[in-house]
Amino acid sequence: MDQRAFWTCTARPMTTPNISNDSGSPSNVPEVVIQRLPLYVRALSQFSDSGNNVISSEQLGRRLQMTPAQIRKDLSYFGRFGKQGRGYNVASLEQRLRSILGLDRAWNTTVIGMGRLGRAVVSYPGFAPEGFNIVAAFDADDDIVGQTISGLDVQSISALSEIVKEKDIKIGIVTVPVEHAQEVIDALVDAGIKSILNYAPLSPKVPDGVTVRGIDPVLSLQSMTYYINE
Amino acid sequence: MDQRAFWTCTARPMTTPNISNDSGSPSNVPEVVIQRLPLYVRALSQFSDSGNNVISSEQLGRRLQMTPAQIRKDLSYFGRFGKQGRGYNVASLEQRLRSILGLDRAWNTTVIGMGRLGRAVVSYPGFAPEGFNIVAAFDADDDIVGQTISGLDVQSISALSEIVKEKDIKIGIVTVPVEHAQEVIDALVDAGIKSILNYAPLSPKVPDGVTVRGIDPVLSLQSMTYYINE
Repeated sequence: MDQRAFWTCTARPMTTPNISNDSGSPSNVPEVVIQRLPLYVRALSQFSDSGNNVISSEQLGRRLQMTPAQIRKDLSYFGRFGKQGRGYNVASLEQRLRSILGLDRAWNTTVIGMGRLGRAVVSYPGFAPEGFNIVAAFDADDDIVGQTISGLDVQSISALSEIVKEKDIKIGIVTVPVEHAQEVIDALVDAGIKSILNYAPLSPKVPDGVTVRGIDPVLSLQSMTYYINE
Repeated sequence: MDQRAFWTCTARPMTTPNISNDSGSPSNVPEVVIQRLPLYVRALSQFSDSGNNVISSEQLGRRLQMTPAQIRKDLSYFGRFGKQGRGYNVASLEQRLRSILGLDRAWNTTVIGMGRLGRAVVSYPGFAPEGFNIVAAFDADDDIVGQTISGLDVQSISALSEIVKEKDIKIGIVTVPVEHAQEVIDALVDAGIKSILNYAPLSPKVPDGVTVRGIDPVLSLQSMTYYINE
């Protein structure tokens, strides 16, 4: 019986692991706060597009369905942004949050597993505009290796480590069947990858310093039926 | 400029809307608690498979990377389960949580949008064993309507309302491009659907009483780069 923990984003520990980094960012920011920052960036970008230069935490809260107090508290982890009663400067807050999150640069990304899901992921048009460039695709099946999918030559997973280094890949997206997910994640970790997006319905074991986010539609469905169960 | 809010599961309001239902379940349970219950069910099912009849909140906590206090607090919303110092009866707690969540029955489900992502979703083997039966597939493209995909005859979206009633469909999964997502979600709501899993990167407007969960890999990626940004 597999004793590994199962999880999703909502069940992860409420504080980040004590990761030291060189960016000067606080390492004790709760993980849920980090997970909300991309929403702030997205909302600020929209406010900016619509010509707002300054917004209040109330306006941001209405947009994000959060309380203004929560927003002020989240942002307070990273210093002082707004002036009391004056609101936030939209452009500078967005720029600062992008910098904190590392969204002011591009990230080379790879997808492992070129079945239906992997093909959907590499063809998804939403990654590249946000700076996530899928630069390599891998599969274990000799019949798939060598195919060109969405402009990528599918490589053998045995070449993973070499290509991760060659292409400076920092993020791995795992779209293999659940029974192969742990071994693929082990291979990504061995290759030096520290950020993994995992579509397989299990919580992989990873060493400290490696972050995994899971995408698990079954768990999402299972928490909606509560509201329609009569 | 679209003024709708953007969101993910982690940024939704921390309390549920005041939904009345007939199941006798408390309507004031925080949404994050509801979202964790499926994880408890999954872990309890594993403990049961491995021959454990009784477990402590400490054991459950280790499995789920949560504190025992959090688990006890979550469960306390639904009554008293364990006896002080005796732990939980695995089978009866699992059964009770399945009943609360509505996982002791099957739910007819439909997928709208038969592009690459929709095809990946309907072929995903993880839904049916958990009671989510995909019984219909829809698309707006006349070239796709009439095809058989994973055993489903793709129907025109104009037939949605009729087929939702005919097949007693309770859940909709939206896999259309972002520019069509709101209209498709409106059509699902008009057809009487109250639970929607949305893969498009926007927060749709829905009336009270309709629950939407978003699956947004870009937001997940954006909150991981924080940890590798140097």
